[in-house]
Amino acid sequence: MSVEQDGRPDTTARTERPLRAVALGGGHGLQASLAALRQLTSDVTAVVTVADDGGSSGRLRRELGMLPPGDLRKALAALSSADTSGQMWSQVFEHRFGGNGALAGHAVGNLVLAGLLEVLEDPVEVLDQACCLLGVRGRVLPMSAAPVDMEADVTGLDTDPRAIRTIRGQVAIASTPGRVKEIRLFTTDGQRKQPIATPEAVRAVFDADVVVLGPGSWFTSVLPHVMVPELREALVTTRAHRLVVLNLVPQPGETAGFSPEQHLHVLSQHAPRLRVDAVLADTASVPTPDRLRAAAAELGAQTLLDQVATSASPGRHEPGALAACLAAALERRTDWWR
Amino acid sequence: MSVEQDGRPDTTARTERPLRAVALGGGHGLQASLAALRQLTSDVTAVVTVADDGGSSGRLRRELGMLPPGDLRKALAALSSADTSGQMWSQVFEHRFGGNGALAGHAVGNLVLAGLLEVLEDPVEVLDQACCLLGVRGRVLPMSAAPVDMEADVTGLDTDPRAIRTIRGQVAIASTPGRVKEIRLFTTDGQRKQPIATPEAVRAVFDADVVVLGPGSWFTSVLPHVMVPELREALVTTRAHRLVVLNLVPQPGETAGFSPEQHLHVLSQHAPRLRVDAVLADTASVPTPDRLRAAAAELGAQTLLDQVATSASPGRHEPGALAACLAAALERRTDWWR
Repeated sequence: MSVEQDGRPDTTARTERPLRAVALGGGHGLQASLAALRQLTSDVTAVVTVADDGGSSGRLRRELGMLPPGDLRKALAALSSADTSGQMWSQVFEHRFGGNGALAGHAVGNLVLAGLLEVLEDPVEVLDQACCLLGVRGRVLPMSAAPVDMEADVTGLDTDPRAIRTIRGQVAIASTPGRVKEIRLFTTDGQRKQPIATPEAVRAVFDADVVVLGPGSWFTSVLPHVMVPELREALVTTRAHRLVVLNLVPQPGETAGFSPEQHLHVLSQHAPRLRVDAVLADTASVPTPDRLRAAAAELGAQTLLDQVATSASPGRHEPGALAACLAAALERRTDWWR
Repeated sequence: MSVEQDGRPDTTARTERPLRAVALGGGHGLQASLAALRQLTSDVTAVVTVADDGGSSGRLRRELGMLPPGDLRKALAALSSADTSGQMWSQVFEHRFGGNGALAGHAVGNLVLAGLLEVLEDPVEVLDQACCLLGVRGRVLPMSAAPVDMEADVTGLDTDPRAIRTIRGQVAIASTPGRVKEIRLFTTDGQRKQPIATPEAVRAVFDADVVVLGPGSWFTSVLPHVMVPELREALVTTRAHRLVVLNLVPQPGETAGFSPEQHLHVLSQHAPRLRVDAVLADTASVPTPDRLRAAAAELGAQTLLDQVATSASPGRHEPGALAACLAAALERRTDWWR
């Protein structure tokens, strides 16, 4: 690093190594940030939620007691090499068995990760091997080495609109007709202990030049990262630039009716000490830009609005456009801190 | 090839390329011949039965209509690279899920092969990709690109000892308390058509310097190869040296009580035109060597007796000892044809 401003690394003048980027999230949202980041740098680390209890992942978790593999698999696919072998294995990993037999609905990659986990045991080693198979140049890490249980306080499920009910499980929270107020994470041993972060994930956040939170299911894929103590501390104290990418449309269920600024409010409620450098959002998905700018400013962040949705599928980020928006945020960076 | 005798390639004086070896069989028997052959040459092709209808393979075959993968997986493991990656993936392929859930008993490699088959469709391409993953230097090929049904005529199941019953399915035949007289193979479309050989397997037999039949479950892993018309024709007409490796102990069920020479008789009954160059057997497993020599001579074969069983596990071939016995058979070869 040749120049530092206010202790922050200057990522534009760097020649020695590629930009170190870390994206935190899960599911399709994380795939979007990874697809964008890989256009900016070869050194991308995905830090992935491990609270899923639905679908193929939920079945494997219940049957084998393993880390839910689905979000990890999606991150691997998003970072897989563009060469023939990487694309073939990525396609195989994403392939789901059909029919109505014992395997129906299982993604092949979930089963491969299950096998690797039973043999190698260490999930970081397992994911490094899977990265090797898919030709990933970066890294995919679970936010915690053990599966995590999630519960949420939800209002609107009773006749009294202020009555709070606690619901449990990622699927239940993601699809609740109520309004999610707060989430909490626990280890799966029934002792209500907070999960322990994967040390390699904490290290990656500390060593990053840029960390990206979101887009994704806000309560079930994005906020879980700030509810793991060591990971939250790393996000609060890292010298990396912290970017938040907002969703294009509210998630039916967990964030139905949430405005963009409300997404920032709940982030702040779950991680009061977290400061953010920039909030990125799609112009068309922000009905009241002034309110968003005000909410972002409360986190210390500038707001960047741009057209980042695909025209074909309005709910999906266009990787090139999101990459350009992330690059713009990184280029402005030195100005903010002068 | 520098010298040819009677149109047969001289494999001892070759310098241009490694010995081309093809082993035909299935299950643990094929693993034994492959483990021995890989000590002699880097160019080993396994041609593998695809009639299994039991265990993990049978479940996958019934659920997905796919080639039974178990014998293919075992051949891949037997030829896997000795380097760290090859050994790791081989261990993962051979690992079976435990418990009593939907995945219990499935070998991970079977599920990987299932996924590859659904995506790539062509089983030869699938196995080439799996070979690449496990660092196999040779090749693993199914004897037919489609699964095969097997039936057998069996005596001894009725009070009349000469009464013949026809039983169906590899597991039923392998475990019958009766005496198997004859097997037949069919495609699985119910039309009683003979299976079609994989062209690459036929080519491999034609191009081989040495082909090895057995050891293995005689009726259900070894004889199926001579019941596929193109493969039988290739075995009859190839210029390769044809070696038959006999089992160390009779298989409970399908060959209970069979003498070594009876194994050769049934081979001859199923493939009357097949000539053999040498029959290899373990000294301790041949109670009447003269009878075996006579039966071998009827096939045109010399008989080589040696100690090829492991001392620890008398039912298993010791790869180094079997390799030495195969090498001895190949070295004697020129003498036989002078």
